[in-house]
Amino acid sequence: MTTPDILVSEVGPRDGLQSVKATMPTADKLRWIDALHRAGIREIEVASFVPARLLPQMADAAEVVRHAVTLPGLTVMALVPNRRGAEAALASGVHKLTMPVSASAAHSLANVRKTREEMIDEVRAIAELRRDLAPHVKLEAGISTAFGCTLQGDVPEDEVIWLAAQCVAAGADEAGLSDTVGYANPAQVRRLFRRLRAELGDRAGAAHMHNTRGLGLANCLAAIEEGVRTFDASLGGLGGCPYAPGASGNVVTEDLVFMFEAMGISTGIDLEKLLAARAPLMAGLPGEPVYGMTPEAGLPKGFVQGKTHV
Amino acid sequence: MTTPDILVSEVGPRDGLQSVKATMPTADKLRWIDALHRAGIREIEVASFVPARLLPQMADAAEVVRHAVTLPGLTVMALVPNRRGAEAALASGVHKLTMPVSASAAHSLANVRKTREEMIDEVRAIAELRRDLAPHVKLEAGISTAFGCTLQGDVPEDEVIWLAAQCVAAGADEAGLSDTVGYANPAQVRRLFRRLRAELGDRAGAAHMHNTRGLGLANCLAAIEEGVRTFDASLGGLGGCPYAPGASGNVVTEDLVFMFEAMGISTGIDLEKLLAARAPLMAGLPGEPVYGMTPEAGLPKGFVQGKTHV
Repeated sequence: MTTPDILVSEVGPRDGLQSVKATMPTADKLRWIDALHRAGIREIEVASFVPARLLPQMADAAEVVRHAVTLPGLTVMALVPNRRGAEAALASGVHKLTMPVSASAAHSLANVRKTREEMIDEVRAIAELRRDLAPHVKLEAGISTAFGCTLQGDVPEDEVIWLAAQCVAAGADEAGLSDTVGYANPAQVRRLFRRLRAELGDRAGAAHMHNTRGLGLANCLAAIEEGVRTFDASLGGLGGCPYAPGASGNVVTEDLVFMFEAMGISTGIDLEKLLAARAPLMAGLPGEPVYGMTPEAGLPKGFVQGKTHV
Repeated sequence: MTTPDILVSEVGPRDGLQSVKATMPTADKLRWIDALHRAGIREIEVASFVPARLLPQMADAAEVVRHAVTLPGLTVMALVPNRRGAEAALASGVHKLTMPVSASAAHSLANVRKTREEMIDEVRAIAELRRDLAPHVKLEAGISTAFGCTLQGDVPEDEVIWLAAQCVAAGADEAGLSDTVGYANPAQVRRLFRRLRAELGDRAGAAHMHNTRGLGLANCLAAIEEGVRTFDASLGGLGGCPYAPGASGNVVTEDLVFMFEAMGISTGIDLEKLLAARAPLMAGLPGEPVYGMTPEAGLPKGFVQGKTHV
């Protein structure tokens, strides 16, 4: 098997499930994660290590991680908002930690009641914890509101790049950029990822794009053309629907994989099996709306994965 | 007022209304077209000149054209499938004719019961009619199924480019490419529009993209980067929903204009007024679903048109 051209990092089991009111039973989560793995997904953000009273949907985080790490070839990632979360995540045996750090000063204070400088200190503390407890575990900083913020509007690009560089200097292995509220446009995506790569080289991380205004795939296209090779996405577009019904948050994994595969960019993911992974998601969250155009429309007639279509 | 960077050609009143079962009353059509014009839209495909028994939604085509041509600065376009339609359209006073010519041999026979060669003859006949009756009227050939076909699957690129060139040789002023069934991907869009421009130069026409598999805006982004300057789109994504609820056909005008304006590419269209143009559309087609992510989510905080957002 050849190495895929890009890595699609599935965030549904964390980002998606955290955003819906219902709690998916643990057994369903595991079935869903198994189906994603069977489709060829090789990185999954499976849980968030936060107090269960805040996010009951994530109360089984450690159990989910312990199952996920048994799946061959899978990088198991968990979100940690702080040191305490990182300790629990490391104890559970995750392969990778992701920590959200907001580029918007207003959003950082509103969301985690910390300044950006305090969050850089938190990244440093987590990096040290990781070094002491599990040095093989990767640490990613996800720069949220990197393309704008519902509280303060524009977020200066210089501050985004400064923050990403500070996170890496504090010990993160990589820093990616997140369009948390769906404000990004392709020209901005190009500019910011170009600057990020110029600043961080191979430590420039994932593109986490939202489809709030319909630009999710166009922004991913701009990102790949700037050298981004890791793309966050959520099966069924689950998660992050802060505005209105129909306005999905995360980029839909199925549509993203279809776009790249149709372009001849290999993802290592089997599209038919990926579409089949919607069944356990829907079974575990009855009545919850799921999105995606490719699943509705089906694959084009004569579409063969791995073949460049004329 | 400076010249916009691109032209967004609104196809809703023809392509959209033709695809829904209900017939929008003429007075509502005119109100909708007025609202589109007020928003700054400068080209509208207002009607299709086909027998009323086939498409009762278009029975008022001549009346709609006669109103639309009174709006200052507006290019009024009509679809004509054949000579007879072209005669009626020219008599009504349109500024531009668009004629669909299918690149898929199978689709051409199934759709209009003519071979592609017979359709080229039809283009020639219409071009001559136009020259004799109204030489100032423009004639566009829209190469449909240019990116694939539900009947035959892949459509060879050589045949697409050949057909576009034949249409121009037969007298069309320009030839554009249509992703009639939503099969296109950005790499293919780049290749085909690059070849089209190499073949036809300034006679390379519009990109008519569908959003059937969610790639509509990504394909428009690829097209603009290949020099395309005219983009077809439909307000509320009206029209072309051959598959399933939620799987909209045409690219949504609101999302397309938001993407380009956010990128600093001027369209000449006022986004707030464009969103307001949804009201007469919805009033004229009560109960009909309309699409669009930007209208659901609203414009970003602090978004100012004409300003490049950081």
